[in-house]
Amino acid sequence: MIGVLGGMGPLATVDFFAKVVAATPAQDDAGHVPLLIHSDPRIPGRPAALLHGGPSPLPALLAARDRLIAAGAQGLVMACNTAHYWHAALREGCALPFPSIVDVACDAALLRFGAGAHIALVATRATLASGLFDSALQSRGLSWVATRQSALDDWVLPAIAMVKAGKTAQAGPMLAQAITQMQSDGANGIILACTEAPMALEQASPAVQALCLDSTQALAQATVALWQQLQNQTHKDVRHV
Amino acid sequence: MIGVLGGMGPLATVDFFAKVVAATPAQDDAGHVPLLIHSDPRIPGRPAALLHGGPSPLPALLAARDRLIAAGAQGLVMACNTAHYWHAALREGCALPFPSIVDVACDAALLRFGAGAHIALVATRATLASGLFDSALQSRGLSWVATRQSALDDWVLPAIAMVKAGKTAQAGPMLAQAITQMQSDGANGIILACTEAPMALEQASPAVQALCLDSTQALAQATVALWQQLQNQTHKDVRHV
Repeated sequence: MIGVLGGMGPLATVDFFAKVVAATPAQDDAGHVPLLIHSDPRIPGRPAALLHGGPSPLPALLAARDRLIAAGAQGLVMACNTAHYWHAALREGCALPFPSIVDVACDAALLRFGAGAHIALVATRATLASGLFDSALQSRGLSWVATRQSALDDWVLPAIAMVKAGKTAQAGPMLAQAITQMQSDGANGIILACTEAPMALEQASPAVQALCLDSTQALAQATVALWQQLQNQTHKDVRHV
Repeated sequence: MIGVLGGMGPLATVDFFAKVVAATPAQDDAGHVPLLIHSDPRIPGRPAALLHGGPSPLPALLAARDRLIAAGAQGLVMACNTAHYWHAALREGCALPFPSIVDVACDAALLRFGAGAHIALVATRATLASGLFDSALQSRGLSWVATRQSALDDWVLPAIAMVKAGKTAQAGPMLAQAITQMQSDGANGIILACTEAPMALEQASPAVQALCLDSTQALAQATVALWQQLQNQTHKDVRHV
């Protein structure tokens, strides 16, 4: 069973869950990935903690992690980009495989946009300020196109808040405007590095969609791959007994 | 936190999760219902157990229930109609509130279609054979219109299997045919008493949709109400300390 740290926000966790099911090559129930999804919207706000000295979400995340492990999780994922600021702390003392959404999204971006691509991020100010994606992009030979403060304030952050309030349709055109500006600022690839963003862009134009790499989708595919790997290991272990 | 027994099938659990989020009057993350979703597609098939002497899902369901309780669930729900055959056994020795999808769907059907209504069920053969809904309908003054074997074999069961295989769009027209026949057989209300059915009918005509009461939606609303009730109890307890 794969444990999912979620609820940041809940709709993004629904989207992640749906993408895991869709990414699984199953013909019936039994072929699907067993998931234990901890969707806890009470986890303290990540941007507030990173930017404004709000309470840290780490104690709640550690408690959720330990709850998932105690309940039998064999691997972990976390369906929130900003929360990956605490990913290293969550991996500490944890023997389970726990792929990072930052790594899998940047791997997918390299594959899709090619080495040397100029990548912009649709992300919270906290994710941008934390530098979470900087070294992951750099180590893959991808360069980072900075997001304009005005694009963040006028379009990206209000759109993310709208998705969290269930106003997904209204958020789409705002994000599309931000993405168009990122493109004219030199980006030839965009990572949707906030799990609220893909839902807002479901109705976006093909031109906008073609530019975007969905970090939720990348994490869903990594989750299916992780489960298959754990299954193969179990089969090997059984053979070697 | 509300524990969810799910994965029967996984896409139906995604649908349930989405409906809980949509049914919550929240303006941000923190207003949403904390959920711990046990989506385990390895739970033995419910129809096979009930109709063909296959392995019982009860041990796996009991283990999942106990895992959810150990992880801190304060209430339980189960996002599968057929599995409610074992609902009474799962409630035994369990002190947590655990509303039944059968009860909440029949309550909602009474409210929507009125006393004396003739109700047909879109359900697995196992749910129909188990008589799960009979007494629940009867005790509310609703009568039951039997499903024709041919409708079950030709439309309902293949459509459910298609949803479980991810072919949701193809399943819709088949279910719509079954529902039209149920109507001409005298039903003036239909309970979608299989959690795969609502997804297949998302693109159905307004006439078909107006006839249908979605058991997943009823359970989602009951889940939000249960969480609000648990919150109010906690507040009262705090006040009385």
